[in-house]
Amino acid sequence: MASMAVLFVKTPDSSHSFPQLRKTQLNLNPNSSLSFHSRNEKKSRRQLRVSCGLIEPDGGKLTELLVRESLKNDKNKEAMSIPRIKLSRIDLEWVHVLSEGWASPLRGFMRESEFLQTLHFNCLRLEDGSMVNMSLPIVLPIDDSQKQRIGESTKVALFDSADKLVAILSNIEIYKHPKEERIARTWGTIAPGLPYVEEAITNAGNWLIGGDLEVIEPIKYNDGLDRFRLSPAELREEFTRRNADAVFAFQLRNPVHNGHALLMTDTRRRLLEKGYKNPVLLLHPLGGFTKADDVPLSWRMKQHEKVLEDGVLDPETTVVAIFPSPMHYAGPTEVQWHAKARINAGADYYIVGRDPAGMSHPVEKRDLYDADHGKKVLSMAPGLERLNILPFRVAAYDKTQGKMAFFDPSRPQDFLFISGTKMRTLAKNGENPPDGFMCPGGWKVLVDYYDSLVSSGNGKVREAVPA
Amino acid sequence: MASMAVLFVKTPDSSHSFPQLRKTQLNLNPNSSLSFHSRNEKKSRRQLRVSCGLIEPDGGKLTELLVRESLKNDKNKEAMSIPRIKLSRIDLEWVHVLSEGWASPLRGFMRESEFLQTLHFNCLRLEDGSMVNMSLPIVLPIDDSQKQRIGESTKVALFDSADKLVAILSNIEIYKHPKEERIARTWGTIAPGLPYVEEAITNAGNWLIGGDLEVIEPIKYNDGLDRFRLSPAELREEFTRRNADAVFAFQLRNPVHNGHALLMTDTRRRLLEKGYKNPVLLLHPLGGFTKADDVPLSWRMKQHEKVLEDGVLDPETTVVAIFPSPMHYAGPTEVQWHAKARINAGADYYIVGRDPAGMSHPVEKRDLYDADHGKKVLSMAPGLERLNILPFRVAAYDKTQGKMAFFDPSRPQDFLFISGTKMRTLAKNGENPPDGFMCPGGWKVLVDYYDSLVSSGNGKVREAVPA
Repeated sequence: MASMAVLFVKTPDSSHSFPQLRKTQLNLNPNSSLSFHSRNEKKSRRQLRVSCGLIEPDGGKLTELLVRESLKNDKNKEAMSIPRIKLSRIDLEWVHVLSEGWASPLRGFMRESEFLQTLHFNCLRLEDGSMVNMSLPIVLPIDDSQKQRIGESTKVALFDSADKLVAILSNIEIYKHPKEERIARTWGTIAPGLPYVEEAITNAGNWLIGGDLEVIEPIKYNDGLDRFRLSPAELREEFTRRNADAVFAFQLRNPVHNGHALLMTDTRRRLLEKGYKNPVLLLHPLGGFTKADDVPLSWRMKQHEKVLEDGVLDPETTVVAIFPSPMHYAGPTEVQWHAKARINAGADYYIVGRDPAGMSHPVEKRDLYDADHGKKVLSMAPGLERLNILPFRVAAYDKTQGKMAFFDPSRPQDFLFISGTKMRTLAKNGENPPDGFMCPGGWKVLVDYYDSLVSSGNGKVREAVPA
Repeated sequence: MASMAVLFVKTPDSSHSFPQLRKTQLNLNPNSSLSFHSRNEKKSRRQLRVSCGLIEPDGGKLTELLVRESLKNDKNKEAMSIPRIKLSRIDLEWVHVLSEGWASPLRGFMRESEFLQTLHFNCLRLEDGSMVNMSLPIVLPIDDSQKQRIGESTKVALFDSADKLVAILSNIEIYKHPKEERIARTWGTIAPGLPYVEEAITNAGNWLIGGDLEVIEPIKYNDGLDRFRLSPAELREEFTRRNADAVFAFQLRNPVHNGHALLMTDTRRRLLEKGYKNPVLLLHPLGGFTKADDVPLSWRMKQHEKVLEDGVLDPETTVVAIFPSPMHYAGPTEVQWHAKARINAGADYYIVGRDPAGMSHPVEKRDLYDADHGKKVLSMAPGLERLNILPFRVAAYDKTQGKMAFFDPSRPQDFLFISGTKMRTLAKNGENPPDGFMCPGGWKVLVDYYDSLVSSGNGKVREAVPA
């Protein structure tokens, strides 16, 4: 196993790799980046760039799709007279994602031209000819009878499971849902057992409906975690309030151990070394659909809170928020979505680990994706040129120091790799990992979670709480 | 069934949609294109563009990979001392394709970064940041024992089935051959029975070897058809010799009937109407691997010759040549390759039909691809912005006129659709199609082909001649 450099930053001569400084910091600091040093002949233009603040969203502005207060009554009335579609939980998560602009510049569920570009190119061409990344299809399936009921209508009303109006979809386009092709091109396999496929595609309708989305109210889940569900606009405000001059995002769907923490604090240290004054971490657990044996969101959030309470991460320079997207487990295809959405939230640095968004092959005895393909594909992806990709340096438990440390290939015998499976087995059995693997408060949350499963049933790992 | 406009030309304000005029025609004709009309304020720059001649190859120049005469002896000696790989027939066809620059700017079999970009993005990023289209993986599989024999060598020698040295591959990179993922992302299915997969992937090695290719001698097949195998450079010379000011390419792997001919002559007429003085047709049958029930190349070439002899197409404005690529039958993914390769041969207009490079689903009772996806994907493909896409208008047999004509949806009862299956059944049974469906000389070739199958066996359709 080779050790990798922590920071791989795009070459300074790329016009997109400027660190984007925040709005209020107008005095140009000559130490803030190599790029600024080498281009002082174009100072006035650069100051213009700097005054733009955080990295721009894809397409230039966040496409927030909430209906203005003054129009809500009209929309509610309109919804009474047009065909209805009931949304699944995952459909609703996508409405949430779209409504807040995570998928900017998408303005609704994909029409066929967007769907085809996503499947074939993992990116969309804008009207000005530029490309934005878009690797996952964000689509709404309907079945034959729904299609028939829609008939010639140009609009439909979207309702949640409690029959509450969620949104109106206008200028609709209905087209075939080529399930096999969608699955093959998104996951690189059609093997049975892919969690998102079984949940949201296999039994879905044979048609997709795209259009412009107008969302009536902000999406809320009333599970005690809505305060963590910051929209891209709210995150941008928070980064600005904190005077962030760099934002580095860490996507996760697992408990944070001290190896992760080491990586995040080390990344901040290196960004400071590069000349940034206040790099801020966006610790950004995924909050939508996850597979049954992942730790549920509510328990993960408790664990993350403990990690901050225990001082493993510095609350002053860390923003913890929930990313509302459902999880595809589509490896190199999905990691692009995870990165692109964080650009829209203001992140200009993205930390990518080994086998991001990966899982075991559902049928064969191997990982579904090559562990290195995710970061390779991400670093080459069209539309992500502006984002600085930070590959993960491998951390493991260093027995000589009694703590998590970057793996040193010159003394492999000193390191212990504690896999996710191993971690879960220890927590399930109420055993402790080696001291220094995870803060005690965070570990206790995990043990409590597995205890709650045993007490509520036979100990089979499952989605035990609404999340 | 809707009738489509024959010509869909990119918007005149795209800087890439200028018709590229040939080298010797320096007097700018103001009628030659809308683009020239609207941009006469930039005349000097435009004249520079015009003087560049035919459309530029991808990456700016053709990457021809033939070893210079003076170095052949050295290369032959070198090949004696390095590990050997024996090429399959399809491998050799790819060496042919690469050696002549059809895949420019590729300089050899793909390394992993190119392979991954092809699978995920259908395009490659060049060092200057620009993108070229590249939708099919051009890769060379090797097995475990070959990998072991190569060991630490940085070069391998490639030999054909007769143990003749074909090429040297240098600065090699060996990486995993993720067969399932390659198939899923290229075809959008992993159903058994895909012809190229069964021929070239299922039993291929678990590794791919990429590198820089140096080809010792031009690839020849000695089947009487090599004179039709013009390289992109030779085609460009021929178009220049004929004073072509537009080149429109027609890819095919089937016999030409009068519907095709109508389409091609109508395309020329419309290009003349647009102001071109001498649009030339590249009638470009695919010459590499095809599935067993396609008509073999040698018979198709006889048929195409008859079509020109019978005056259905004008030999003065038609170049018939063989495209050496093997066929994937990968629909919307493959049509991009078919178009991109023709840019490299000098074509700036590409005719795309219904369901290009498509076939029946190998397991389910339906076509593998939506018939419209090919032209939609092609028209949106990154790296093909310079190419003018000409969607196919549907032609059928008009019973009132006794000839092939563009389908008129206002009187569907007058039209007869003669499918490929119907055509083959008639030819197999020695029956005649309606007068005017195909020129009699061309039809006779087809009947003779199916007769040759019966006389050589049980009439089962198969690859009866080397092609």
